[in-house]
Amino acid sequence: MNVTSHMPTSIQADVNSTIVIFGASGDLTARKLMPALYMLWNDGFLPDDSPIVGAARREKTNDSFRNEMFAAVNRHSRSGPIDAAKWNRFASRLYYQKMDLTDSSDYHALKSALVQFEKQAVAESAATAVDHVVYLATAPSLFVPAASALSAAGMVPDRDSEHTLRVVFEKPFGRDLESSLELSDRLGHLMREDQIYRIDHYLGKETVQNILLFRFGNMIFEPLLNRNHVNSVQITVAESQGIESGRGGYYDNSGALRDVLQNHVLQLLCLIAMEPPAMFQADAIRDEKLKVLQALAPGAAGGIDNWVVSGQFAGYREIDRIPQDSRRETYVAMRVAIDNWRWAGVPFFLRTGKRMPHRVTEISVQFKQPPLNLFSTVECDGDMCELVGARPNTLIFRIQPHESIGLSCSTKRPGMQYQIHPVEMEFEYEEAFETVLPEAYERLLLDVMRGDSTLFTRSDELEAAWRFVTPVLQHWERKQDVPQSYLAGTWGPNQAEALLAKTAHAWRQPTGQD
Amino acid sequence: MNVTSHMPTSIQADVNSTIVIFGASGDLTARKLMPALYMLWNDGFLPDDSPIVGAARREKTNDSFRNEMFAAVNRHSRSGPIDAAKWNRFASRLYYQKMDLTDSSDYHALKSALVQFEKQAVAESAATAVDHVVYLATAPSLFVPAASALSAAGMVPDRDSEHTLRVVFEKPFGRDLESSLELSDRLGHLMREDQIYRIDHYLGKETVQNILLFRFGNMIFEPLLNRNHVNSVQITVAESQGIESGRGGYYDNSGALRDVLQNHVLQLLCLIAMEPPAMFQADAIRDEKLKVLQALAPGAAGGIDNWVVSGQFAGYREIDRIPQDSRRETYVAMRVAIDNWRWAGVPFFLRTGKRMPHRVTEISVQFKQPPLNLFSTVECDGDMCELVGARPNTLIFRIQPHESIGLSCSTKRPGMQYQIHPVEMEFEYEEAFETVLPEAYERLLLDVMRGDSTLFTRSDELEAAWRFVTPVLQHWERKQDVPQSYLAGTWGPNQAEALLAKTAHAWRQPTGQD
Repeated sequence: MNVTSHMPTSIQADVNSTIVIFGASGDLTARKLMPALYMLWNDGFLPDDSPIVGAARREKTNDSFRNEMFAAVNRHSRSGPIDAAKWNRFASRLYYQKMDLTDSSDYHALKSALVQFEKQAVAESAATAVDHVVYLATAPSLFVPAASALSAAGMVPDRDSEHTLRVVFEKPFGRDLESSLELSDRLGHLMREDQIYRIDHYLGKETVQNILLFRFGNMIFEPLLNRNHVNSVQITVAESQGIESGRGGYYDNSGALRDVLQNHVLQLLCLIAMEPPAMFQADAIRDEKLKVLQALAPGAAGGIDNWVVSGQFAGYREIDRIPQDSRRETYVAMRVAIDNWRWAGVPFFLRTGKRMPHRVTEISVQFKQPPLNLFSTVECDGDMCELVGARPNTLIFRIQPHESIGLSCSTKRPGMQYQIHPVEMEFEYEEAFETVLPEAYERLLLDVMRGDSTLFTRSDELEAAWRFVTPVLQHWERKQDVPQSYLAGTWGPNQAEALLAKTAHAWRQPTGQD
Repeated sequence: MNVTSHMPTSIQADVNSTIVIFGASGDLTARKLMPALYMLWNDGFLPDDSPIVGAARREKTNDSFRNEMFAAVNRHSRSGPIDAAKWNRFASRLYYQKMDLTDSSDYHALKSALVQFEKQAVAESAATAVDHVVYLATAPSLFVPAASALSAAGMVPDRDSEHTLRVVFEKPFGRDLESSLELSDRLGHLMREDQIYRIDHYLGKETVQNILLFRFGNMIFEPLLNRNHVNSVQITVAESQGIESGRGGYYDNSGALRDVLQNHVLQLLCLIAMEPPAMFQADAIRDEKLKVLQALAPGAAGGIDNWVVSGQFAGYREIDRIPQDSRRETYVAMRVAIDNWRWAGVPFFLRTGKRMPHRVTEISVQFKQPPLNLFSTVECDGDMCELVGARPNTLIFRIQPHESIGLSCSTKRPGMQYQIHPVEMEFEYEEAFETVLPEAYERLLLDVMRGDSTLFTRSDELEAAWRFVTPVLQHWERKQDVPQSYLAGTWGPNQAEALLAKTAHAWRQPTGQD
């Protein structure tokens, strides 16, 4: 047995970074970032003394910031209410820094403050080099000004410095190919690609990470995942909610394609379709993902309408801050192809939408039928009886709401004949491990601190994804017609069913309970 | 989707046979045959009026036979205590015929009696042709005399008769190649092969039948079940009990190789290793099983001791009716090969024994390791820590005590690293279907009545199995040494471990609880 490890040695837990959160008054900090940092510390992945600095425009003392964060973590932590004494141990390294992110002089003040905070930490831990992580929990309009000011303040170290800086950006990264390229160019003049961490929180989820381990840590799936054995692949990212209060303006400027498909859905597609990487290492993996994105092609000949369907849920236009005549899609479905040796000819059906029947994210790989129907059975539904054979095997990665992996098989129904009965073998994560899964942000924040960019999007991936979806956006702009309406609580517009029916396929109808 | 059925049309439930049980006073009748017939009737597979005739040497009335059978079914039926009124409906077609199976004149009396019994049934059901099933629940020494007397009494119809006869034989079918061929020859002069049903009750079990459906009703396993993907296959038929009271004389004349390996184990081997049949039809399936047996070969070069290990549990010689110097094996293990394109080079490890830790029958297919160890993890056992990679995937068909199918996989352990964790996806039969599985004899008796010989052993299969194991028996005879002793409650002699350790394999240690 080959026990040589192909794991990068950098995956270790002993990180010692100063973390600065820009936009520390915001929702993301309260709901995700601070609870994640607390849990990381709680689980032994963060040292006791490395500074965590919240920066925002409002006036606040360290104490008031700590109190706010206590309330936030207490409310949002996956471990439930937290112990005050324990919190105090964690919170002693929490600092607040008042900052106007557009004012470059405030960055000099930040720089001096960090030196102060770190002196205390160094005194205690005797660390030498300093790693800075800056998390931009801000509006995208502040990305370039913040990066620019960090650079001007001398906070972006050279490659040969003993200090490091890693800057985390939240989506959106542009709104089409042109704006994304422009953003990448401007950031590229201010910092190196290895200093940029584009976060996609989907990639921090256990089941998503497990896709690669499941594929390449087992011998039995990889020989099947190709055009010889797979009939089709479906990726669904369905939300049951509509537009969150106050987000109408943002959403109407974005839509399902930009907001979800271009990033989350295409990232899932990459993970299920990519070739095995040479090593389990960030750039080797991202090289393979990039190849998938570069091989993406329309799933049908002719115009874009032949392979893309958009929809808008009934009632969307009545929502606050959304124009009465909005043509914004809240649903998008597409049939795409991956034109490479592994996948040529296999349709990939992608869809995402709001106001769907359930909140469900899943990838399902439907295998071909057995070449011969050796067994069959008579099934009756009311008065209608028909002879049916095996259902195709399906391998399902469920990412939301419950993380699990299922494999549907045909077995013999007990009894006196060879009757086929479909069953599912399932492996449910939280059940199997009797644990509450870590939040995606925990994993991703830790990865930033340890400099592992495996689960972050590289600029060339981003470019390839935008290159694929931008013609669709442009086509919709040009066309000037309206997405097909669908009722809230349904699986989207009729045209989406028709898109698959053309080739005798059908969308799955996940229950959300599985 | 191809919905053409390849099922033979003969698999139907409307059978109307007269069943005659030779040896109706015996244990098999009381414990298995009559409860199975009752359940078949109860479940609608037997008509209300077809005669069931018990034949044995003792004097008995129909009523006393019915009462005995009521007690037996009440005790042994899988449905628990039975309803007396219901029983009376079933029992009205039970008859008893006193017979000396070695006396040919008694067969003429039987023949006349059957005509009487059937007249009543015909009057009620208006059936015309008569199907006879004769079940030889007798000592093997009576096989030829009974068949001969049936023939002499004119009870074995020609191929073009509208009547049929099917005779069921219980093992053993000979005790080596020569005696088996002699038995086949003698029976072959008395009746046709299609009138002979050699029963192996293992083949009536749901999970055993499911092996074929699982393999050929799914698309995803067949591409993996070959030398490219499989490391090795293990078949275990382990009994926890020793020698049943009073069976010492029989067993010491037989042993583990004759009693279990030659039939049950090799039949399981055939099912897991055979090629897909052209049709799901008895002779097409048995043709494929035969090819496996014909391709069987020693699993190691050199003498028989290089690939076969025998054992005898400590205490065996103290058992009643077993000689003090018995060299009879109560355990046998072997490494065999299947020399064909699918399996060349894949070792098949077979074992069966008495006084094992658990009563377990299972087939496990161990797949190869992934070609590359992309993931690994540090595992500690006390002070010892080592880097381990993925465990090989294993597909397990559990036949006893609980019927289930399991697939072991590697998944990601939840947490901050890519750590491998082995899990098993399982499909458990009785749990999934919330039903008590039918007894093997139910299925097999029904198959005899409907003339489906799929689950019965054909003479050429039998010959091929004996041809393979007989040289081992002869070698043991010649060698004149004693099987290695093993303690009761262990997995057999040390030599069996050594047999696998030579190639860095190891026996599984099933818990019996799975």
